[in-house]
Amino acid sequence: MKISLSLEQVLDIIGEVRIEGRTAETITGIASLDQAEKGDLSFMGNKKYRKAVSSSLASVILLPEEYDGHPGDNQVYLRVADPSLALVQVCERIEKQLWPKPPAGIHPSSVVHPDAAVDASAAVGPLCVIEAGATIGAGTVIESQTLIGKETCVGRNCWIMPQVLVASYCRVGDRVRLHGGVVIGSDGFGYNYLEGIHRKEPQIGIVVVEDDVEIGANSTVDRARFGETRIGAGTKIDNLVQVAHNARIGRNCILVSQTGISGTSTLEDNVVLGGQVGMIGHITIGAHSMVGGQSGINHSLPAKSYVRGTPAMPYMQAQRIEILTRRLPDLFKRVAKVEEMLESSD
Amino acid sequence: MKISLSLEQVLDIIGEVRIEGRTAETITGIASLDQAEKGDLSFMGNKKYRKAVSSSLASVILLPEEYDGHPGDNQVYLRVADPSLALVQVCERIEKQLWPKPPAGIHPSSVVHPDAAVDASAAVGPLCVIEAGATIGAGTVIESQTLIGKETCVGRNCWIMPQVLVASYCRVGDRVRLHGGVVIGSDGFGYNYLEGIHRKEPQIGIVVVEDDVEIGANSTVDRARFGETRIGAGTKIDNLVQVAHNARIGRNCILVSQTGISGTSTLEDNVVLGGQVGMIGHITIGAHSMVGGQSGINHSLPAKSYVRGTPAMPYMQAQRIEILTRRLPDLFKRVAKVEEMLESSD
Amino acid sequence: MKISLSLEQVLDIIGEVRIEGRTAETITGIASLDQAEKGDLSFMGNKKYRKAVSSSLASVILLPEEYDGHPGDNQVYLRVADPSLALVQVCERIEKQLWPKPPAGIHPSSVVHPDAAVDASAAVGPLCVIEAGATIGAGTVIESQTLIGKETCVGRNCWIMPQVLVASYCRVGDRVRLHGGVVIGSDGFGYNYLEGIHRKEPQIGIVVVEDDVEIGANSTVDRARFGETRIGAGTKIDNLVQVAHNARIGRNCILVSQTGISGTSTLEDNVVLGGQVGMIGHITIGAHSMVGGQSGINHSLPAKSYVRGTPAMPYMQAQRIEILTRRLPDLFKRVAKVEEMLESSD
Repeated sequence: MKISLSLEQVLDIIGEVRIEGRTAETITGIASLDQAEKGDLSFMGNKKYRKAVSSSLASVILLPEEYDGHPGDNQVYLRVADPSLALVQVCERIEKQLWPKPPAGIHPSSVVHPDAAVDASAAVGPLCVIEAGATIGAGTVIESQTLIGKETCVGRNCWIMPQVLVASYCRVGDRVRLHGGVVIGSDGFGYNYLEGIHRKEPQIGIVVVEDDVEIGANSTVDRARFGETRIGAGTKIDNLVQVAHNARIGRNCILVSQTGISGTSTLEDNVVLGGQVGMIGHITIGAHSMVGGQSGINHSLPAKSYVRGTPAMPYMQAQRIEILTRRLPDLFKRVAKVEEMLESSD
Repeated sequence: MKISLSLEQVLDIIGEVRIEGRTAETITGIASLDQAEKGDLSFMGNKKYRKAVSSSLASVILLPEEYDGHPGDNQVYLRVADPSLALVQVCERIEKQLWPKPPAGIHPSSVVHPDAAVDASAAVGPLCVIEAGATIGAGTVIESQTLIGKETCVGRNCWIMPQVLVASYCRVGDRVRLHGGVVIGSDGFGYNYLEGIHRKEPQIGIVVVEDDVEIGANSTVDRARFGETRIGAGTKIDNLVQVAHNARIGRNCILVSQTGISGTSTLEDNVVLGGQVGMIGHITIGAHSMVGGQSGINHSLPAKSYVRGTPAMPYMQAQRIEILTRRLPDLFKRVAKVEEMLESSD
Repeated sequence: MKISLSLEQVLDIIGEVRIEGRTAETITGIASLDQAEKGDLSFMGNKKYRKAVSSSLASVILLPEEYDGHPGDNQVYLRVADPSLALVQVCERIEKQLWPKPPAGIHPSSVVHPDAAVDASAAVGPLCVIEAGATIGAGTVIESQTLIGKETCVGRNCWIMPQVLVASYCRVGDRVRLHGGVVIGSDGFGYNYLEGIHRKEPQIGIVVVEDDVEIGANSTVDRARFGETRIGAGTKIDNLVQVAHNARIGRNCILVSQTGISGTSTLEDNVVLGGQVGMIGHITIGAHSMVGGQSGINHSLPAKSYVRGTPAMPYMQAQRIEILTRRLPDLFKRVAKVEEMLESSD
């Protein structure tokens, strides 16, 4: 994995900048201030790392404009409006170097149904299956061993990683990124308990993944019982997350790893769920709510809720109760003492 | 995804029915009462949706026999003994239209060992691997990119979705449905800690999946250390569930998403575990027990237990303690006040 | 699945042993003392199973040297220094019988880039993809349908199960075992929230999996934002575990199923995490710490910590608080009674 960027290329990428110092190094890596070595580019993304700047061995450091200090020998300070953003821009360039878009075309080892429509500018890697009636949009990359099901539409400029399964009849928007092992369109989990057996409720709905969604490795999104399971535009989902049938996830939500969204539940826009959160079905979490990791949500929440715990409660209340819970041994002693005093005063 | 059913076809499917009203519409979708539009079939599966019936735009509505009300123009009410069951029957028909059984035969891109025995009526999709000594029963469908391991038996009329892995020596019964990404027969997790390293205990047992089991996307079932890990007939497992080595799961159990069954644990018949439940190993959960979501079970439970919480306790006790826990701030104040009164009365 | 070992073979495997009794049986299975039948080999791995020995039907039983008792007819007792270790040795032999190493070579259905370097002694099964610049070390087995990404190195004598994805630029050491559905090198989960959208922070680092690591089915390990995510030598990870970007896991750790390691967190050597544990990012868990199942860790822990609960606290404290929490109903009554006494005494 070889990174190679000249200072000129960095300047070209990040635009407006104030330069201080000189370096003879080519940038061959990105590292945090304390871990950086000669040849690395680093950055101060947060004021709390201010003290690490002067001792950093990085050859080039992205700094906020107001940073007070001067580079060492063979070191360059670049003062910019937003060092984190500048870093993202540099990394985006490196990302393109490391993962250049593969050339358009279908690998001959893939099995593409004659009734599938793969855009001429799309790339389909080795050993994929594209079923009848599927459509793959312009500029989309389907990596190896992935399956796009019957009559499923994948939009434009998506990047579908290896070993993904998008089952039949689903719809994936533009610029969607699905990581390895994602399963979209598995059956929802629904049964009627009848005469001692669980009779399957057929799951004949679909999944709609809107534009600019990213879904992490081995996460699963079930198709609706009927109608659709929907993931709103711009929502980002981490690894090993479960989205049950008929869930409706709004726009720009964040779902951290191993969280589960139960059936027919709604997340409004801009909801953030920590990792390993669970919830009952048929509830709504209001827009801009934040839920702490491992919380269990057993009722609907209004917009801008900030909760945690099992069952989830307002953040400050949860914190207070946690503190008091730890003081229970003391409380029991105090009550015992009170009882003793009352007894002796009889 | 085109659904098309005439009213006559619906009547034919659901059998005994009392018809009221007329419609010119063909049924082109299924929807809940409030979301239904013209052309949809809907249903009242639960009395609490009673009020939604009269305002529903559905062209055909399945209703309980005692429902009191009359259809609008171009609308049909169908009164039946069990609307939910009738809906399942209609959906099963639609499911068959949407996912017709693929024709028998083995796709030429699949790698089937000459010593494997695939029944002539079974279908094996593209890019599968069927290893030596594996047997695939009559009427079974193996979708794309799935692997059936060495000497593994898959029964009759199973439907194995794409990208499933059933490793060697395992046994899968009849009418089993495995969803995308399921792994059956991965090694159990067992080590001996010896002289500073974890020495692997070889996992030489198997997994037995009995008849009519369904396992959700990306769930994992480990092979036994020796002997077998067993999933009882009729049990339904949701997505991302872990079943550890030597677990024994009874018949007709329900395991909701992201739950983990530890090693050498037993679930007797008809146990229901909510989502994200965990448990220690080597315990037994009695038949017909129900465990709330996110519970942590640290001891065996008798039959018909109804528990939740971490550690799990009887449902009513858990609820009471939750309520009291929220009242801790008040309790601390009350105790402080009592102490103050006692002090001042000294 | 046929196991067949003569008593002589067993003696040859386990070395020093004291033999008592005779049997005409060939060993055809391994089973626990109570489940064993004629033809089985069993063992007493723990003193608590002492009573099960005399009634066991096993034909051969591995026992500690000090075990007091005598075999039945057609039964052999083998007294050894460590029965569990002896069993592991026997099982290792059976494992080799059941899963003989496949012959070296690349299956013709696999797609191996001409610039990949697969050692002549390695085996690559059907329908794999080996991308440009990847290297596969001597003696390594890559089973079916697995992908090794661009410029990724896999060491010697690894065993990579079917349907694994090791994405580009990663490094896998020697004797590593990856189970079905594992994803190594998916993107870390990082975004900048900017003007109402989540802008992706490119994830341009790698994953390093050191020697002798084992990772369970469908677990995921994200690549670093930059730098590396690292899993230390000898660490064992169960199924459905999530390791986020830039995590550093030490040597000889144990991570039980469904646990999640957050971004930029460190586990020092010999840490044991129970199942379904969660943690916040940017913390360190000290060497030789043990964390109970379902715990939530919200701060760094010193070496040799022994904690559980959410939020995690020392084990004894957690246990005490759990007990007192269950006594809350009683405490509320006691406080009410005290208040009443004080009121009436006014």
